[in-house]
Amino acid sequence: MRAEIVSVGTELLLGQIVDTNAAHLSRVLPEVGTDLHYRSTVGDNLERIVEAIRLALSRADVVFTIGGLGPTEDDLTKEAVAKALGVELVMDEDSARRIREFFEVRGIGMPERNLKQALGPKEGRVLRNDVGTAPGAIFEHGGKVVITLPGPPGEFEPMLERGVLPYLREKTEGGHALIKSRVLKIAGLGESAVEERVRDLLGSRNPTVAPLAHLGEVHLRITAKAEDPPSADRMIRTVEEKLRERLGDAVFGADEETLEQVVVQRLIERNLTLALAESCTGGMLAHRVTNVPGCSAIFLAGIVAYSDTAKSGFLGVPGELIERHGAVSHEVAKAMASGARAAAEADIGMGITGIAGPGGGTPAKPVGLVYIALSAEDHESSQELRFAGNRLDIKTRGAQAALVMLRRYLL
Amino acid sequence: MRAEIVSVGTELLLGQIVDTNAAHLSRVLPEVGTDLHYRSTVGDNLERIVEAIRLALSRADVVFTIGGLGPTEDDLTKEAVAKALGVELVMDEDSARRIREFFEVRGIGMPERNLKQALGPKEGRVLRNDVGTAPGAIFEHGGKVVITLPGPPGEFEPMLERGVLPYLREKTEGGHALIKSRVLKIAGLGESAVEERVRDLLGSRNPTVAPLAHLGEVHLRITAKAEDPPSADRMIRTVEEKLRERLGDAVFGADEETLEQVVVQRLIERNLTLALAESCTGGMLAHRVTNVPGCSAIFLAGIVAYSDTAKSGFLGVPGELIERHGAVSHEVAKAMASGARAAAEADIGMGITGIAGPGGGTPAKPVGLVYIALSAEDHESSQELRFAGNRLDIKTRGAQAALVMLRRYLL
Repeated sequence: MRAEIVSVGTELLLGQIVDTNAAHLSRVLPEVGTDLHYRSTVGDNLERIVEAIRLALSRADVVFTIGGLGPTEDDLTKEAVAKALGVELVMDEDSARRIREFFEVRGIGMPERNLKQALGPKEGRVLRNDVGTAPGAIFEHGGKVVITLPGPPGEFEPMLERGVLPYLREKTEGGHALIKSRVLKIAGLGESAVEERVRDLLGSRNPTVAPLAHLGEVHLRITAKAEDPPSADRMIRTVEEKLRERLGDAVFGADEETLEQVVVQRLIERNLTLALAESCTGGMLAHRVTNVPGCSAIFLAGIVAYSDTAKSGFLGVPGELIERHGAVSHEVAKAMASGARAAAEADIGMGITGIAGPGGGTPAKPVGLVYIALSAEDHESSQELRFAGNRLDIKTRGAQAALVMLRRYLL
Repeated sequence: MRAEIVSVGTELLLGQIVDTNAAHLSRVLPEVGTDLHYRSTVGDNLERIVEAIRLALSRADVVFTIGGLGPTEDDLTKEAVAKALGVELVMDEDSARRIREFFEVRGIGMPERNLKQALGPKEGRVLRNDVGTAPGAIFEHGGKVVITLPGPPGEFEPMLERGVLPYLREKTEGGHALIKSRVLKIAGLGESAVEERVRDLLGSRNPTVAPLAHLGEVHLRITAKAEDPPSADRMIRTVEEKLRERLGDAVFGADEETLEQVVVQRLIERNLTLALAESCTGGMLAHRVTNVPGCSAIFLAGIVAYSDTAKSGFLGVPGELIERHGAVSHEVAKAMASGARAAAEADIGMGITGIAGPGGGTPAKPVGLVYIALSAEDHESSQELRFAGNRLDIKTRGAQAALVMLRRYLL
């Protein structure tokens, strides 16, 4: 099956947002046996949207539109789809009811024109939006399919996952060559070090192995082309085993797994509780840990001790220690870790202190210098790190390094 | 001048990389008087690249290609451009010399086919690549222009800046319209409510006003087309004043300004210190506040009190209060706010408690229910909110609502 994507939105053509939805959709289409030959982007202009959809329909079996499903006058996608296909839009009562409820629950009056969001296809089906008010739709007409999806990624992704992929799997079942891929995630090893170890595997054709560097992580994407899912899985597994052999326990997870998920899972399994004391990361580590559902079983408390007084008051770090070694030091990181552990009565405490910049650096303690300490009943350690980048980069790398340190301790 | 962008690369159609180059180019084109109506993306297939370029040439004066300038068999862009324009490629001796030198300097033999990268236009000019081996080019033929740019952002960006923008400025100089835009940012007012107030302005043609909804914020983009920058600025200012009149102090900033920056700035100006007590937002609010450089002047401490014990231990919330009203209640949010304020000796304390999900909800206290309280010497208030979305959405909306509440208090 051939597919095309038409992304709609003047904000895309002005470069105000990057089209991550189109990339996301592109990534999953091969997995349901669908070939993508073109993508296009068009502004909030009815005539041009119609033209883009018509062109896409002339070349493809399935056309996806992304964006333009909101209630405003700029939201023209469904009107354009109807025009391009030569069909009428009809009111979907279930959607209308859901939109009314959405406003009722929030105790605000619904602007009448929000009902335009409940217009849907005569032939096809409506895709429920569990997060916002804009339903998507699958238009079927004359052997062609147009699927309309909302622009906000938080609405786009669940609708794709729950509504669109099952529909496409059904349609393409059997016979077609498909592409599957799997991402191995590595932390605590730099990109060059990773490539050094797996260089020979990066040149292979099927499956291919492609590296992708993120802040503090390296991802390796294995992509296999095969006649059926089990064959693709087998091919991926063979390469994955080789990669894991070379990289050892630096591989922390795969696909959608995050480092914080892996760490929280491990703490739950070992029945160990955690308390955090953060200075330069400013709560980002606690934020990442608490992104994991179920973390409340092991995460007791996090202290963002930004001022020296807070370090003493909440964590019992002696003022004299801060004076002697400076707030950014091995000693203070350790005292923060053990202080958090004691105050929250946790099994493990971690302390992070550093200079996130842009101000506050000195020649001896420059911006990017970070100390991280871990304290447990039978263990105490700390490390000194130096990070490059802007304020957010340094916070991100600091939080990442703390998770890597915690994971290593738990291994 | 009308422009289109054709991004080339199978890796884009597989979603393995996000097309940040196209977004970058889109962002700068309006500044040199160039209108972008369409963007398209095509894989490494000669016939389809030719077709995409032909279509773009039929609608636009200038067509940009991004990617496909490397030395491999998959790199087909220049060949496709030549075919679409009906011109020949000629060897550029300067480029050939530079490519040979690139390899010599690195002490490696140059594969013969790398010389294909030195092929360029007969009419037009070559764009030097100071970073890699792939030169870009400007093809001029029959009144149309095709500009080929390399895919790696590290090569793309300097070539755009040094080679392409000066060329376009020259071409559009005098008499041609340019486009400028400015984004007004609004918080504490929903998308429909914002539109309700400014509806009549959304229909205007020049400047245009377009709404964009984010999680907990609405952005209004004002875009003006004018002969010169001062005229564009004047036109934008006139509309901006009208919008600010209608929206009042719900407008918190413009362009790159963030809500946390505005709040931190206000606290610094008023010389007020802040302490935070977070439960369901899990440190995200502290993370956002500490993203602002200079926040240490006013931010003393944040307590992520995830367990009830931490709420009592660090914040002095009476266990009996939690038992009577539940941890998610007006009363506990208030006790957290005043507890944080007292413990950190801050001027203002904020407390947030709620149910981020996916588990933990009950009919009486469903997922998405959040209480936020603010405590100051002369003031105490709290509010109940109900948010939709996944765990991260609820954290994000909670942190956002707390910043809105704090900003309102400071106004």
